Amino acid sequence: MSDEKSFHMTPDEFRRYGHTVVDWIADYHSRIESFPVLSQVKPGEIRASLPADPPAHGEPFDILMKDVENLILPGVTHWQSPNFFAYFPCNASGPGILGDLLSSGLGVQGMLWSTSPACTELETHVLDWLVTMLGLPDKFLSSSTGGGVIQDTASSAALCALLAARERATNYISNKKGCDGRIVAYVSTQTHSSLQKAAMIAGIGVDNLRSIEVDENFAMRPDLLARQIEADKRAGLVPSFVCATVGTTSSNAMDPIAEIARVAHQHNLWLHVDAAMSGTAALCPEFRPLQKGVELAESYNFNPHKWMFTNFDCNCFWVADRKALIQTLSILPEYLRNQATESGAVIDYRDWHIQLGRRFRSLKLWFVIRHYGVEGLQHHIRRHVELAQQFAGWVRNDKHFELAAPAPLNLVCFRHKAGDAANQTIMDRLNRSGDLFLTHTKLNGKLTLRLCVGQTNTQARHVERAWQRIREEADKLTAVA
Amino acid sequence: MSDEKSFHMTPDEFRRYGHTVVDWIADYHSRIESFPVLSQVKPGEIRASLPADPPAHGEPFDILMKDVENLILPGVTHWQSPNFFAYFPCNASGPGILGDLLSSGLGVQGMLWSTSPACTELETHVLDWLVTMLGLPDKFLSSSTGGGVIQDTASSAALCALLAARERATNYISNKKGCDGRIVAYVSTQTHSSLQKAAMIAGIGVDNLRSIEVDENFAMRPDLLARQIEADKRAGLVPSFVCATVGTTSSNAMDPIAEIARVAHQHNLWLHVDAAMSGTAALCPEFRPLQKGVELAESYNFNPHKWMFTNFDCNCFWVADRKALIQTLSILPEYLRNQATESGAVIDYRDWHIQLGRRFRSLKLWFVIRHYGVEGLQHHIRRHVELAQQFAGWVRNDKHFELAAPAPLNLVCFRHKAGDAANQTIMDRLNRSGDLFLTHTKLNGKLTLRLCVGQTNTQARHVERAWQRIREEADKLTAVA
Repeated sequence: MSDEKSFHMTPDEFRRYGHTVVDWIADYHSRIESFPVLSQVKPGEIRASLPADPPAHGEPFDILMKDVENLILPGVTHWQSPNFFAYFPCNASGPGILGDLLSSGLGVQGMLWSTSPACTELETHVLDWLVTMLGLPDKFLSSSTGGGVIQDTASSAALCALLAARERATNYISNKKGCDGRIVAYVSTQTHSSLQKAAMIAGIGVDNLRSIEVDENFAMRPDLLARQIEADKRAGLVPSFVCATVGTTSSNAMDPIAEIARVAHQHNLWLHVDAAMSGTAALCPEFRPLQKGVELAESYNFNPHKWMFTNFDCNCFWVADRKALIQTLSILPEYLRNQATESGAVIDYRDWHIQLGRRFRSLKLWFVIRHYGVEGLQHHIRRHVELAQQFAGWVRNDKHFELAAPAPLNLVCFRHKAGDAANQTIMDRLNRSGDLFLTHTKLNGKLTLRLCVGQTNTQARHVERAWQRIREEADKLTAVA
Repeated sequence: MSDEKSFHMTPDEFRRYGHTVVDWIADYHSRIESFPVLSQVKPGEIRASLPADPPAHGEPFDILMKDVENLILPGVTHWQSPNFFAYFPCNASGPGILGDLLSSGLGVQGMLWSTSPACTELETHVLDWLVTMLGLPDKFLSSSTGGGVIQDTASSAALCALLAARERATNYISNKKGCDGRIVAYVSTQTHSSLQKAAMIAGIGVDNLRSIEVDENFAMRPDLLARQIEADKRAGLVPSFVCATVGTTSSNAMDPIAEIARVAHQHNLWLHVDAAMSGTAALCPEFRPLQKGVELAESYNFNPHKWMFTNFDCNCFWVADRKALIQTLSILPEYLRNQATESGAVIDYRDWHIQLGRRFRSLKLWFVIRHYGVEGLQHHIRRHVELAQQFAGWVRNDKHFELAAPAPLNLVCFRHKAGDAANQTIMDRLNRSGDLFLTHTKLNGKLTLRLCVGQTNTQARHVERAWQRIREEADKLTAVA
């Protein structure tokens, strides 16, 4: 095909090496349980194995793959292992990976409708599907006043929500003015740290981000929220935004959305609901009561890249009033002008997020939904919740352990009764063993272990084995003591 | 392997379908010239072809692939076509796509060093390589006070730079305060619109973003910058940030970095250099004089996803003082605490950008650099510049056309001498024909066509054909008139 000297990979080479990579990934997933879940390398060890200088000349593809196997793999923490119970999951699946591969192969950049209409329209379509699938309110549908967009992460979605709220309360942007220190935003002490980061970025300042205290279940107290808003208004400040969480990162606490919404709307605040992991549970009607009141939110988001088998990154973000979002983030230089945009008949997603450029991310989400069907997704979510509940039951019935928080879904917060040092030792030893990976939090000042069931291939035997290993390490403690 | 009912794709199915997708992509690239470059669908056409409801049950993979072919492909604008000359390129390559596929397959989330040490260390390593490859200053090396990080886009990198500058000038974040309307930032009238968006997001306000006038080559005038800064200081404002561009989006203008740096540093401003597309040219020593003065910048970024064969998204962002960036963006909730972070011996890239979560993006960049070697990358960059220069020569020698700006590299801004309506007609007809895709800008108030040579497989015959088609459409104009 080429009439000129070229260093490019030919289509035939791409075919050959592509098959190699696909096979490598299939093999990787088949042998993933043979690796320590948490990488055991020391700081600097991976870099030390790499050549100091970039290659002057191209290298054969098989050398690259050998280096992935020998140099990179030891430095990988295996997020896709069924023994990964840390943080929140970041699960993936065959259809998700292959949809993403297609996106890379097509290589389109969907900043405007016209730069690839399918990239925009499939995204709108799939996000409308998800409104139905998750039982979200109709106002989030693109056929209503709202609509959905794929963001990279819940951090970015929260920032966009906060910016739209800032704008609605102040018209800073339409007035071309900078912030003046009067905006106040509200979260709970348990809200994800990305909200603090968003406040820092948006020029609101952490002093004006109020952390409302929580109840005994780590859920925001609407009465304290109301009291704080009133105090702030009396002080001449401008309360503008509150974030409620469906399943906090620390303990999976469920904020009372309906009560928070009542307070928020009495004072004209923008209510953002962060359901980063737990939003996926709403695929199953029986879990929807956990996010009762979601129909009152101005914006909502969850991450299919956490618990819905869609590889990172893929966050779904909806707003009830798309104009409010677009007015906040829209820019239109001459070199982006085009007839479709001027006609007003299309969505240009560049005005829905921080970045200008964007990948064709809806492909992987579409593939996941179509491969599993609603039925398949529900099956696996229910199974994960069931496994976590089983684990919670074992903890409850063990005299050395206790639950540290309610476990409404797939995250169990628990601790050994012997105190912080014991729990730290148990966790460190388990993670160093490579058999599983757990992380921790602090609840009521006490070190608490977290076990989150959400990896694609986690089955009963993995959770059983985790509990067995936890008790083994606990027994060693007792033996030493 | 499974001891439970499952809707997951098995490793063997993944292998089979994975080969199918790889082959589809290889075929797509082989037949890409048979498609109209700009998608010809009407608004809503793609959505109308999709089922209104999500599937209750899973569907076979070959149906998904048929739908990609029949329903999605007509809505794709073919960014990877060698006849794509619009905007800036977003080029991709076999090794880039396969490196990205590996990243999806490994499915790690690199927010912390410990969540996959290789994800962090390979990124640091490759960004150090690029400092050498591009002739950037040593202060951007991780072994110095600075360092590099992969961001999604130049928009996000610019926002981070602006935030770090805001913090250095005011300590808003360390003092937990919101913005107070005194910060001023400087760009030129030709700077990318993402800087305006960044100022809006950061609470600085567009009124406090000064657009400095440019000279006859569309480059920022340092004398006017100095005058504006002095006026702002006299007015009690706080000048804090200036962005210089290596190759503006509109016309590929080169701001005089060294002179801007002298003014910036006299007044203690943070100098950010945006080299989104044209930074890649610095792979070739002969093009480095275009960014003379880059050693004086506080931060710098370019996009391997534009012109360095690394599929979207991949932006490389360096700072001279990493502490300034980290202090601006760092948050550390309990659930992210870990020994490696506390030791201070590692980089946690979550503190280097807006998001918390992150993909293993350095894999694709590493694959590209190793596949091509410095030699291969240089070859293709030189060839693109040569082709664009050849095109500029044809324009210069044609009595109906004129160059609208200097063409220092691979972007040619030109216009038919018959005025705006003629140029609009030529562009619309070319784009509707599907033979090639061009976009426009305005320079000195006149509609100007842009031809950017940067697609992976663009060769002499494609540029020759583009020029032939442009003249054909111009001839038709004359015939009618």
